[in-house]
Amino acid sequence: MTVKISATEMNAFLDVVFPQIKGAFFVERLDETGCVMRMPMDESHLRPGGTISGPTMFTLADVAAYVTTMGQIGKQALAVTTGCSLDFMRKPEAGRDLIAHATLLKIGKSLSVTDILLYSDGKQEPVARATMTYSIPPTRS
Amino acid sequence: MTVKISATEMNAFLDVVFPQIKGAFFVERLDETGCVMRMPMDESHLRPGGTISGPTMFTLADVAAYVTTMGQIGKQALAVTTGCSLDFMRKPEAGRDLIAHATLLKIGKSLSVTDILLYSDGKQEPVARATMTYSIPPTRS
Amino acid sequence: MTVKISATEMNAFLDVVFPQIKGAFFVERLDETGCVMRMPMDESHLRPGGTISGPTMFTLADVAAYVTTMGQIGKQALAVTTGCSLDFMRKPEAGRDLIAHATLLKIGKSLSVTDILLYSDGKQEPVARATMTYSIPPTRS
Amino acid sequence: MTVKISATEMNAFLDVVFPQIKGAFFVERLDETGCVMRMPMDESHLRPGGTISGPTMFTLADVAAYVTTMGQIGKQALAVTTGCSLDFMRKPEAGRDLIAHATLLKIGKSLSVTDILLYSDGKQEPVARATMTYSIPPTRS
Repeated sequence: MTVKISATEMNAFLDVVFPQIKGAFFVERLDETGCVMRMPMDESHLRPGGTISGPTMFTLADVAAYVTTMGQIGKQALAVTTGCSLDFMRKPEAGRDLIAHATLLKIGKSLSVTDILLYSDGKQEPVARATMTYSIPPTRS
Repeated sequence: MTVKISATEMNAFLDVVFPQIKGAFFVERLDETGCVMRMPMDESHLRPGGTISGPTMFTLADVAAYVTTMGQIGKQALAVTTGCSLDFMRKPEAGRDLIAHATLLKIGKSLSVTDILLYSDGKQEPVARATMTYSIPPTRS
Repeated sequence: MTVKISATEMNAFLDVVFPQIKGAFFVERLDETGCVMRMPMDESHLRPGGTISGPTMFTLADVAAYVTTMGQIGKQALAVTTGCSLDFMRKPEAGRDLIAHATLLKIGKSLSVTDILLYSDGKQEPVARATMTYSIPPTRS
Repeated sequence: MTVKISATEMNAFLDVVFPQIKGAFFVERLDETGCVMRMPMDESHLRPGGTISGPTMFTLADVAAYVTTMGQIGKQALAVTTGCSLDFMRKPEAGRDLIAHATLLKIGKSLSVTDILLYSDGKQEPVARATMTYSIPPTRS
């Protein structure tokens, strides 16, 4: 089974549907098992103490689940997050890109479930984990 | 029991510790049971279809839990989120402020647990719910 | 708006659909906002150190969400849990019944979302919180 | 790095600390990355429609996280669950054992985080996922 959209196409699609965050994320790999994404870090992502903010990590996990789901169903901008859980486990390093490894757990008619591990680039241990559930809009006929 | 910081002081403190998001949030009430916060919406918070983005809702819930926790322990910028769960239940209205009602469930020596309901201003039914766990840094002696 | 099944009817229905746990739970109140349930504790619910087991608390929260949902849609045994989050906040007392206060947050065509606070009977502070999402089977026509 | 307790020792320890559920679970593998556990299914685990109950799946995930944590810290019966999230994704098969694959994500001084995938024995796709956080009691000195 193959994905319905390539990593290159997905990067272009993200710029169109999320113009506010253009250039903030890069899909490095997208296949039927999930995706790998990269998010460069700058001052705007930091919190007191030099740590990366929770919303930054949420955002990357959320986009990685969206990209994983689009790989299965093709471009459907209106898929929306319906639920999530996150555990923040280690302090990410301010000077390293944030990397997401997303794994598709379920793709059904009406929803998808994706597990995501977040890493500071080049490090072995995950800084956070997340599970994201997306609601898939009914296909027009 | 009273809170260790007033809503007015908390608003000033947020501007100092989170300069990147200055003016994005307002504490309307802060007491020992929790807080009420307001987040004005603009184009930057929107997603395809005119809905408010998941990261926007996460951010408000996260800040409301932080403010609730600060009310208990006083200004300690280094408290960090360790875990959360969110359910997105209804489409928020793009033209209305997002309002958080936060309720303190537990304040211990090392962590706090806060429940948050998010509303579109003026509406009865919540658009999302969240639970946020914060880790509290040990007191210096 | 009223519920589609009374607390008395619900207690009888629970005994029929969950014969394995007959007499384990009692619905004390059921209305359109949610329900209150009681679960008597005995040795089988305890863990090392005299605390009540996590599965016991999960079970009560799960049943309270089921009862709350049935109050909205009527008897439909096939509703199933699709997701949940729990935070265990305080040690319940072994000698006190476990009480659930469930609040309906959303009832849609295909799912319900219910928040639950668990208490040791007679105590002010919750021992645990949970959110349960139930999938509602499509209505036969 | 090796675990502080073998699968065989862990099986014996479970029977001692959880006598109520003796024989309900079997540790098949326990190493520094996590564990594999097996839970035979019988009538007591079923719900209307022949599905395995949510509490049954919660219980197996909870024990698998406990076993994974014990592998790291040695026998400490008083470790307790502090939080969890679960997604129930597919209907488990009533006639097949339930299998847990647990992966350790973090072991710190005061808590552990474990991801668990649950399967119907012999099937490829997980029926549920869970993340369990355990609080580790301070070492006596």
